[in-house]
Amino acid sequence: MKGQNLYNKAKKIIPGGTMLLSKRPEMFLPDYWPSYYSKAKGCEIWDLDNKKYYDCSIMGIGTNTLGYGNSEVDKAVKRTLRSGNMSTLNCPEEVYLAEKLIEINPWAQMVRFARTGGEANAIAIRIARAASGKDKVAICGYHGWHDWYLSVNHNTSGENLNQHLLPGLDPNGVPQELKNTVYPFEYNNYEMLLNIINKNDIGVIKMEVVRNSYPEDNFILKVRELATKKNIVLIFDECTSGFRETYGGIHKKFNVEPDLAMYGKTLGNGYAITAVVGKREIMEFAQKTFISSTFWTERIGPTAGLKTLEVMEKEKSWEIITKIGKHVQKKWREIANKHDVNIEINGIPALSTFSFNYCNAPEFKTFLTQEFLKKGFLGTTSFYASLAHTDEILNKYFEVLDEIFFEVSNCILDKKNIKNLLKSPTAHSGFKRLN
Amino acid sequence: MKGQNLYNKAKKIIPGGTMLLSKRPEMFLPDYWPSYYSKAKGCEIWDLDNKKYYDCSIMGIGTNTLGYGNSEVDKAVKRTLRSGNMSTLNCPEEVYLAEKLIEINPWAQMVRFARTGGEANAIAIRIARAASGKDKVAICGYHGWHDWYLSVNHNTSGENLNQHLLPGLDPNGVPQELKNTVYPFEYNNYEMLLNIINKNDIGVIKMEVVRNSYPEDNFILKVRELATKKNIVLIFDECTSGFRETYGGIHKKFNVEPDLAMYGKTLGNGYAITAVVGKREIMEFAQKTFISSTFWTERIGPTAGLKTLEVMEKEKSWEIITKIGKHVQKKWREIANKHDVNIEINGIPALSTFSFNYCNAPEFKTFLTQEFLKKGFLGTTSFYASLAHTDEILNKYFEVLDEIFFEVSNCILDKKNIKNLLKSPTAHSGFKRLN
Repeated sequence: MKGQNLYNKAKKIIPGGTMLLSKRPEMFLPDYWPSYYSKAKGCEIWDLDNKKYYDCSIMGIGTNTLGYGNSEVDKAVKRTLRSGNMSTLNCPEEVYLAEKLIEINPWAQMVRFARTGGEANAIAIRIARAASGKDKVAICGYHGWHDWYLSVNHNTSGENLNQHLLPGLDPNGVPQELKNTVYPFEYNNYEMLLNIINKNDIGVIKMEVVRNSYPEDNFILKVRELATKKNIVLIFDECTSGFRETYGGIHKKFNVEPDLAMYGKTLGNGYAITAVVGKREIMEFAQKTFISSTFWTERIGPTAGLKTLEVMEKEKSWEIITKIGKHVQKKWREIANKHDVNIEINGIPALSTFSFNYCNAPEFKTFLTQEFLKKGFLGTTSFYASLAHTDEILNKYFEVLDEIFFEVSNCILDKKNIKNLLKSPTAHSGFKRLN
Repeated sequence: MKGQNLYNKAKKIIPGGTMLLSKRPEMFLPDYWPSYYSKAKGCEIWDLDNKKYYDCSIMGIGTNTLGYGNSEVDKAVKRTLRSGNMSTLNCPEEVYLAEKLIEINPWAQMVRFARTGGEANAIAIRIARAASGKDKVAICGYHGWHDWYLSVNHNTSGENLNQHLLPGLDPNGVPQELKNTVYPFEYNNYEMLLNIINKNDIGVIKMEVVRNSYPEDNFILKVRELATKKNIVLIFDECTSGFRETYGGIHKKFNVEPDLAMYGKTLGNGYAITAVVGKREIMEFAQKTFISSTFWTERIGPTAGLKTLEVMEKEKSWEIITKIGKHVQKKWREIANKHDVNIEINGIPALSTFSFNYCNAPEFKTFLTQEFLKKGFLGTTSFYASLAHTDEILNKYFEVLDEIFFEVSNCILDKKNIKNLLKSPTAHSGFKRLN
């Protein structure tokens, strides 16, 4: 398999093998995952051997809600290539995109752009710290790879990022000096946040509005009221949740407005563009510090962002992907019940995920991917919905899932041993070092 | 002027007006700089009114050594658009680009990619700190906008970034906790570096190999020997200097090898791609921490990088731009001498810059840009060379410069008052806040 051969080479010359932990072949099916693509269109992906798969997994880790290679977005980008993607002068598209994002976020008056979610998170923290005049931050959720965030795992209090998608992370290379500057709080745990704020001079709260579950007991509203009362800058990280349930941030659903918000993954339908939007009185502090980068002036990002917003608005993509996600969750439940397989479903519909409630869960997950691959699907325990997921493709996906859950149920009933069904090692689930 | 109108809008919705300080219209010609482009090709730029200029200034801040819209690079990127720029699988081009960069840097065995220079700098620092097990860093030069670097201006010792391209920077929003973790040393001042290392437990040295002048008294070699002796990780930041005088890092000229190096601006000829290359025993520490980002997996960056390297190698672009730069410096000197204008020339030939040795220097610089613009040139006191700068264009540029220096000499001789010749406010030179 060309893909696996190339990946074996990659592991020798790229530490960790890939640029994103979640796209490591070992996270899916060690030794067998196709690893690389030659072509992607809609929700179809061709590997280096030109074998075609339907992507019923993470869809570029949630970047492509309009499907891969959306023709309208690609056409706009091609036009930008023809007219030049870089110059000494600035690209007008960044101003148009800023205007559009302010229209979508009527509580905001200013915008800055970056090209990755980690950068957008670091920009927002810089601006918010400058505005508050305080270094201490309370966080909830996943906010990237930068020092400010990973420093949580140096804290002397023992709280760490284990509950925030980074279990077991050893923050080597992050300065020890940053310990006790950032404090994590659990989602829906208002008392914990209150306690952190009462004990520390917190200037900034940054949180994902929704990750695995929805807010309970007016959690988001209460955080907003607390921030306002304590003069704390409130940041909603919508890099993952943005444009999945509303035309904009998922915070719109709860009628709560932040001081700053970031958008990322979905904003350019696969092209690199991320944004920090915010209230003028906070955003202006960007001018009292230094936030500047050469490649934030390239033209493809804002071009793709503008056109993606237009297509999303026209198609009401957030409604369609939520409907698809709900259907998938319903079918997962049905098929699992049919075979007496005990699964737990999590996530907002457009970013659905499930786990097997068994001690053999990692093996079941690996088996699932192995069997999906045989039948021409990229499949795992997540399903990130896109406009390209037609009923026809979904029905094929459910058929295969039905067969897989039948086999899983045989293992649960001790008729078969899951280990004997696996031809690959078990999939990784975290920071396992590659050899 | 459409460009100025759009920029006036931008200042209201983008703090600082642009994404890069060096592309702020006020840095060139307040109220009159065209600000935005509709098209760029070769070294020609069309503004929003479709007026054409020759770019004899910063060429996208040094990104486009092959000229804007290089047809071979663009063709490769278009092919990538047709086959899809993002998917759940990884793009094979990142492995090919890593192989190529290792071939160009035979001392290195591993590579990681990012999309901006600031990110590449932050990745290199993370890896080097993890490898050394120490937080303290000595730096020389400009290394981006991130906390780790700007924290220098919190130091209690009084040393700051004034000599490193960031004069007068107030590091608002950078945690105070990072003070005294990073120590700046002057270029060619070996004693200063030695003193820093003797007084502090330094684990990492990061420096630009060449910025305004070349090393004296074997400076680079001595830094290398010191780093080796003290078991310090040595990083060369080649984001700006790379591929300007050699096919790779400018360090090749001095026969000195770092442990890590970053490449940026020139690597994708205007497309966003940056790289950290390094020795295996250091780079492997990337696996003992968390360095991961969604948009580092997009496909345009590595595609553009691969093709740009191929075209640079074929054209020997570094030789051509160095030759052009030398010619420009020679003509600057000749024309200045002819008119008895006292200027000081700095920079490597491919990134030439000069300053007027007068207290009216900011006004002279503003006047120069004003007059160049009238004659259809983007011109300032810098000239970043590209393959698109033909003799014909350069000769026109020198003709206009001759006229401008004649006027400047009249002002020096008190025949005219420079302030009366300026229709715009004086250009900014640093962090002036925009209103």
